[in-house]
Amino acid sequence: MDTKPSVGYLGMGIMGTAMAGRLIDAGFPVTVWNRSKDKCEPMRAKGAKVADTPQEVVETCDVTFACTSDPTSARAVVFGQNGVLAGITAGKRYVDLSTVDEECVQEIAAAITASGGRFLEAPVSGSKGPALNGQLVILSAGEEALQKEVQPMFDVLGKRTFFLGEAGAGARMKLVVNMVMGINMVALCEGLAVGQKAGLAGNDILEVIKEGAIASPMYGLKGPKMLEGDFAPNFPLKHQQKDVRLAVDLGDKVGQPMPLAAAANESFKAARASGKGDDDFSAVYATVKQP
Amino acid sequence: MDTKPSVGYLGMGIMGTAMAGRLIDAGFPVTVWNRSKDKCEPMRAKGAKVADTPQEVVETCDVTFACTSDPTSARAVVFGQNGVLAGITAGKRYVDLSTVDEECVQEIAAAITASGGRFLEAPVSGSKGPALNGQLVILSAGEEALQKEVQPMFDVLGKRTFFLGEAGAGARMKLVVNMVMGINMVALCEGLAVGQKAGLAGNDILEVIKEGAIASPMYGLKGPKMLEGDFAPNFPLKHQQKDVRLAVDLGDKVGQPMPLAAAANESFKAARASGKGDDDFSAVYATVKQP
Amino acid sequence: MDTKPSVGYLGMGIMGTAMAGRLIDAGFPVTVWNRSKDKCEPMRAKGAKVADTPQEVVETCDVTFACTSDPTSARAVVFGQNGVLAGITAGKRYVDLSTVDEECVQEIAAAITASGGRFLEAPVSGSKGPALNGQLVILSAGEEALQKEVQPMFDVLGKRTFFLGEAGAGARMKLVVNMVMGINMVALCEGLAVGQKAGLAGNDILEVIKEGAIASPMYGLKGPKMLEGDFAPNFPLKHQQKDVRLAVDLGDKVGQPMPLAAAANESFKAARASGKGDDDFSAVYATVKQP
Amino acid sequence: MDTKPSVGYLGMGIMGTAMAGRLIDAGFPVTVWNRSKDKCEPMRAKGAKVADTPQEVVETCDVTFACTSDPTSARAVVFGQNGVLAGITAGKRYVDLSTVDEECVQEIAAAITASGGRFLEAPVSGSKGPALNGQLVILSAGEEALQKEVQPMFDVLGKRTFFLGEAGAGARMKLVVNMVMGINMVALCEGLAVGQKAGLAGNDILEVIKEGAIASPMYGLKGPKMLEGDFAPNFPLKHQQKDVRLAVDLGDKVGQPMPLAAAANESFKAARASGKGDDDFSAVYATVKQP
Repeated sequence: MDTKPSVGYLGMGIMGTAMAGRLIDAGFPVTVWNRSKDKCEPMRAKGAKVADTPQEVVETCDVTFACTSDPTSARAVVFGQNGVLAGITAGKRYVDLSTVDEECVQEIAAAITASGGRFLEAPVSGSKGPALNGQLVILSAGEEALQKEVQPMFDVLGKRTFFLGEAGAGARMKLVVNMVMGINMVALCEGLAVGQKAGLAGNDILEVIKEGAIASPMYGLKGPKMLEGDFAPNFPLKHQQKDVRLAVDLGDKVGQPMPLAAAANESFKAARASGKGDDDFSAVYATVKQP
Repeated sequence: MDTKPSVGYLGMGIMGTAMAGRLIDAGFPVTVWNRSKDKCEPMRAKGAKVADTPQEVVETCDVTFACTSDPTSARAVVFGQNGVLAGITAGKRYVDLSTVDEECVQEIAAAITASGGRFLEAPVSGSKGPALNGQLVILSAGEEALQKEVQPMFDVLGKRTFFLGEAGAGARMKLVVNMVMGINMVALCEGLAVGQKAGLAGNDILEVIKEGAIASPMYGLKGPKMLEGDFAPNFPLKHQQKDVRLAVDLGDKVGQPMPLAAAANESFKAARASGKGDDDFSAVYATVKQP
Repeated sequence: MDTKPSVGYLGMGIMGTAMAGRLIDAGFPVTVWNRSKDKCEPMRAKGAKVADTPQEVVETCDVTFACTSDPTSARAVVFGQNGVLAGITAGKRYVDLSTVDEECVQEIAAAITASGGRFLEAPVSGSKGPALNGQLVILSAGEEALQKEVQPMFDVLGKRTFFLGEAGAGARMKLVVNMVMGINMVALCEGLAVGQKAGLAGNDILEVIKEGAIASPMYGLKGPKMLEGDFAPNFPLKHQQKDVRLAVDLGDKVGQPMPLAAAANESFKAARASGKGDDDFSAVYATVKQP
Repeated sequence: MDTKPSVGYLGMGIMGTAMAGRLIDAGFPVTVWNRSKDKCEPMRAKGAKVADTPQEVVETCDVTFACTSDPTSARAVVFGQNGVLAGITAGKRYVDLSTVDEECVQEIAAAITASGGRFLEAPVSGSKGPALNGQLVILSAGEEALQKEVQPMFDVLGKRTFFLGEAGAGARMKLVVNMVMGINMVALCEGLAVGQKAGLAGNDILEVIKEGAIASPMYGLKGPKMLEGDFAPNFPLKHQQKDVRLAVDLGDKVGQPMPLAAAANESFKAARASGKGDDDFSAVYATVKQP
């Protein structure tokens, strides 16, 4: 008989709840934990156990997943009192799905493995919808054998898993791709701005792009909102700018000049300096078109 | 009974032949002309008449299409001996599908309309395949009433027609979109270069991009070739650089700063200066990664 | 006995008047002409002859100097009715001190030499004060033998003469140096802006610069005015931007990438787009510090 | 009778030796210290006392100056065993002339003042020659009253003293000015490169610049060497690039976009990536002209 391993899940935010729910539905015995316990109730209702501390989750489960909101909480869950580290013993498996910076990942990886545990970084691409539908893209890195062992769970959560190398590579990949995304965004802004000033209709520009070689989901989704001036935050501009800046710094470290990333960084900085840091990153359009 | 208007077609290159063929198949009476007459034979075999001069085509057809390779030949067909202009009389309709610069379009438009003719610019997006399958995207501009009259023919040639405004707007739209494309290309180059120097696999970067918000046909098609160093020209780098430069100049005229376009222009210039002008525009990758 | 050659001078603007005056004082027999004749009176009072047309000046003088305000008037003086060209015969010497673009210089040079005349381009660096004091810098190009022949007159006008090569080289040199100047200006703007936002006093920054390796007359003169917001035009921003743009285009022609010039061009464009085209070029500071 | 205060001097490198020598010549009782004691001999010969530890210097002198080579040694002198901090008691005066980063300055300032001491940062502009001749420029910051007290000694060392504000402002000022310098350098490189490719002589360009508004000591000194390909390090390129990068980061912190600084950073990065990090910063010319 096929017995499924027990899975712990730390962090019942929007993403964590969606993922834990899918794991329960798929038949895994799931134990959840969250800083504010009431957020665990929906999963308890679906049949999950609720633990009092991360330590307890790690001690009682075969593998523990975590999805926290930022480096501070990712570290707190691991290094805090009754945290993950307190429960790690030889062979314990820890998979961190949080999107954090490379240094944070490496610090957690080092601590877990120093205690005999096994570590996998696995930031995901995709938001609530894909999380509910198991359509996430998973950027894993760390111990490859562990990735293979948890792939059955990843198959429940995502449509595709990458294994990218040593711990930190997942964070680095997100940085690189976000940097390319940031440049593509400013490129569209410049195109819309110059085109409209030259007498073309903004909508025509978007539609022509949609029919051609550079059509992308981002251009399709953001373009029309940009023309309407709708910059409700999906991915805040200050985070986009930070990613571009960090990518430029990465280029500094590895000896790669990146003039376009550097220029895009300055465009996002100009937008941030004019108070758009908490708007969607597409709000750079307002700055580009109105120098 | 529905009688189809007679259609002339000047220029039996790859694109012209494909388009004229579709018009014949759709039941239009077609007369073709080409500078070297032997290229007209395939269409004669399909039932087209073959004329001796552009003038003859214009005189004998209800509407004349032209698709030439560059501004020089676009002008030659119109202004040359026994050219289009010689055949234009009041109400004659001329539709130029060539991809040329705005000044060229406006010069031809002015000459045709000064002679009493009617003019439509209609550069197309898409290459041989889409031309054969009637899947082109048509960027028309000039006389809107004429666009409506020839729409039945455009429906045979393309999947979508835009009407963009005054003659020249089609050329301008291509410039703007190509400029955004050029920036997107350099963005990918910088991402691939920094990512690989930071230990990520180039292929992983491409695959992660493919699954996300900035996936585009261009990234899908060019990316793998770039990693292999295959820069066989599809769109020559020198043309891409010229378009980015002209777009920057357009920004100069209309008062739109474009720092990313300006930076991309310099990257393409660096690539051109190192002898890659006739390679595919993706060859800028070789310059970006190896400063 | 040493007889000085007769000198014609076309254009009695501020610069022309100052230079003609010095030539008279140095003992040259001078004939002047100006479109509005009353501007010739000061020189008549100093002993100059006054001619009715440029043609007359050329016909009656050994060598003719001209200093006009822009390409349009430079061309008018040469190609207009009773213009310079009408008076040119074999061996006639024409020295154009106007600051115009390379194409204009080459067009005039070609016309003069085609008529058997001899041509020297000689734009000057320096304004009214240096002109009155014979402290101009003269950037000559064209026929080197002619430069040697007129050097005694240049010695009256300037502190230093350069001979730079074929006609057009003087204009080109001005372009290159103005481009470097434009970048230096934006560099100071960025330094003042970031420094002050980081708590340094603007004046301290200027004073520290003054004591160090990058002290320059421009930084010394413009810096304090920039801090006071005094942008009274000395060299209009729109002309500075045009020069940077033309230098970038020159880089395009000769295969030289210039990312800083390209970025500076966009900064000046942003300033121009916000209505500062007629202010001094240092007004780019207002745009840089207030994104 | 006027009794001069006793002065300690830590660090007998080229700069420290020159400065201590001047203080002795000016009649101050000087006590010196250096990690390797033999370097103290020249000053002993001139009449200085030699101490065994920084602590001893601080304990026995009214005011202690230090000039170390980098942040690591600046910190070691203060925080190491028998270091400055061990000797600091209420009212002790410490003046650090080392060129280090802002964080290092602030860390040392905090430690000194927490122990009751008084602190002044005073990095200097100028190298061996100006140090020997008392022609340094002194960028002081920290406690203003202390600056006034040590001004008699600064008058012996430099031609001009600035007081810039809180500790760290001196380091920040050097960053800002070095950033402007870096941009000016790349500007010259682009000008020389495009000008020569367009047929102008490099030397002519330098000479014309020398006669005009942007003439500067740096252009005068470095320009001719750059044309000769002499890039013997005076200020290493990797340090110049680091300063530009840090200035761009400072812009990030204070909300100041700096597109030219960002572009210059990439040019210096390209030069560093091609192995010129240890050459003079003017070696960026080799990269600019040869894309």
